[in-house]
Amino acid sequence: MSIEQPANPSSALMGHHHVTLGVGDPQEDFDFHTKVLGLKCVKRTLLYDGPLPVYHFYYGNDLGEESTLVTSFPVRHIGAKATEGSGQVSHISLSVPPESLDFWQARLTDFDIDVTQNEKFGEKRLDFRHPHNIRMSLVGVADDNRKPHSTGPVPAENMIRGTHSVGVSTRDIEFMAEFMEVAWGGTDEGTDGNWQRYSMGEGGTGTFTDFEIEPDRRPGSWIIGEGAIHHMAYHCPDHETQNNIKFFVEGLGYTDFSDVKDRGYFDSIYVRTPSGALFEAAVSHDPAFLVDEPLESLGTKVMMSPQIEQSYDEVMAIIGEVKD
Amino acid sequence: MSIEQPANPSSALMGHHHVTLGVGDPQEDFDFHTKVLGLKCVKRTLLYDGPLPVYHFYYGNDLGEESTLVTSFPVRHIGAKATEGSGQVSHISLSVPPESLDFWQARLTDFDIDVTQNEKFGEKRLDFRHPHNIRMSLVGVADDNRKPHSTGPVPAENMIRGTHSVGVSTRDIEFMAEFMEVAWGGTDEGTDGNWQRYSMGEGGTGTFTDFEIEPDRRPGSWIIGEGAIHHMAYHCPDHETQNNIKFFVEGLGYTDFSDVKDRGYFDSIYVRTPSGALFEAAVSHDPAFLVDEPLESLGTKVMMSPQIEQSYDEVMAIIGEVKD
Repeated sequence: MSIEQPANPSSALMGHHHVTLGVGDPQEDFDFHTKVLGLKCVKRTLLYDGPLPVYHFYYGNDLGEESTLVTSFPVRHIGAKATEGSGQVSHISLSVPPESLDFWQARLTDFDIDVTQNEKFGEKRLDFRHPHNIRMSLVGVADDNRKPHSTGPVPAENMIRGTHSVGVSTRDIEFMAEFMEVAWGGTDEGTDGNWQRYSMGEGGTGTFTDFEIEPDRRPGSWIIGEGAIHHMAYHCPDHETQNNIKFFVEGLGYTDFSDVKDRGYFDSIYVRTPSGALFEAAVSHDPAFLVDEPLESLGTKVMMSPQIEQSYDEVMAIIGEVKD
Repeated sequence: MSIEQPANPSSALMGHHHVTLGVGDPQEDFDFHTKVLGLKCVKRTLLYDGPLPVYHFYYGNDLGEESTLVTSFPVRHIGAKATEGSGQVSHISLSVPPESLDFWQARLTDFDIDVTQNEKFGEKRLDFRHPHNIRMSLVGVADDNRKPHSTGPVPAENMIRGTHSVGVSTRDIEFMAEFMEVAWGGTDEGTDGNWQRYSMGEGGTGTFTDFEIEPDRRPGSWIIGEGAIHHMAYHCPDHETQNNIKFFVEGLGYTDFSDVKDRGYFDSIYVRTPSGALFEAAVSHDPAFLVDEPLESLGTKVMMSPQIEQSYDEVMAIIGEVKD
């Protein structure tokens, strides 16, 4: 036994796994991600926490690989409204080829979506909002080798490669910087205005967390509700690392680290960070989304646990059918 | 299956269980609680989270009953320093007979502790600080029937009865009020200046949480460190209620609810609240502190798990002996 601080197991976190949005109407959310952004729905299943039936949609590339995944909880039927603010994951940016930005500006405009051109950290970006008010961006990233969805409505040469950075609005960075560096294994990548960037693992697109330091911004809500991002999941390579991270970070005093939750396609642990944002470390199952559906029909049926499937008709009457 | 919100299981939370402080030198902490405040040390054991050996002291009445307990982690040997601020449990107040306040003012002054007389919610109080900077108060409460430590240095008629209220510094109350009422089963007891009080269960002393709304205060740290209160534990009547609370509150979106942790004398779950403070719901074991020591020698030896006890000498060399 030693009183020396052990090596930080979180340095093995590899970047993003998925980001999860609280949204409104399921059909509108589905259409936006699959028809406007052109992502593939790789799974339609249910939220496993709590007593109320809620969809859980997963959108990504052909296989729904890590760091291509955006997921959503459509909760309009239960009336849960989120409030945007500080202490939240505030936006998600997705990587596209730099030469596709004009294509995307025209495409989003054609769908009546307001688009603003911006630049942060020397990266050109298009900022817009999901129909249920979630802040999103497309960022031009050269040489992103992640495979895009190959059979969607957007030609592969223009298609989204995956997540680029996740934004977190925080009133103060001091103890969040300590958390990122000591507890979460991040690397400080510098600032641009009131934004401070961290990377995970080997760095680069799909690993960035951008903190927007907004000292005077009122806090947002933490519930699963329409109109805010609920949490950000980072890609953890294996269960041993996940257990080590939980033990290590709990030992620092972050005692609210969740138990390991089997999400069907990956195993998750969650912790609230000093920024206010909820972070997750997720270990993918092998196989992941192919475990209960073949590639040919991936994401086309509603997958439910056997217990819930006994009430299939009743559940569907509550959450509603979603059409391709 | 129904989409109606189920009844709130947290309404069964009965009030305080214990409050846990991050402190410095173990002997100074021990002497302050047992010799100045006159509490009984009902258990000296170890912190079970993380790889580093740290004492865990429990102080309370003769048996260490719920809502009489103050506990501490002395961490000076590992150099963990906390920062006071918003988003933290900010103080703990203890109940004493109203007619004992003069006695206590004189006693604390004799021990070279600065004491200030104040009044909040119509209650007379003495405010002071633990030697490692934790804010504490003694509040005059009539007809508090909890049994005081009966064989300590303070005569029973003047002795502390248990916790009265726990203070939480928060920059905003909006989503914390929602958490207290929707997720935690609290009752709004009104305001006094920038303080807002909630009670639990049947209300009254030992059940209060007082939020100090301080919009401009910089956040404090969340680590286990010297000089700040780490978390506040509420008394949960049984394991079924504890499981129901976890399921219900997770379903609202507070996914960072910890697994159930066996703390040897009670079972705990933890969640970060929108105020920033870390809350716990604890179910006492039966027997609790008498499980591993008889009443006659309660709290006199260091209790370790069998695995750690194999390294007893090495552990004690790190954390140091503490003398009565």
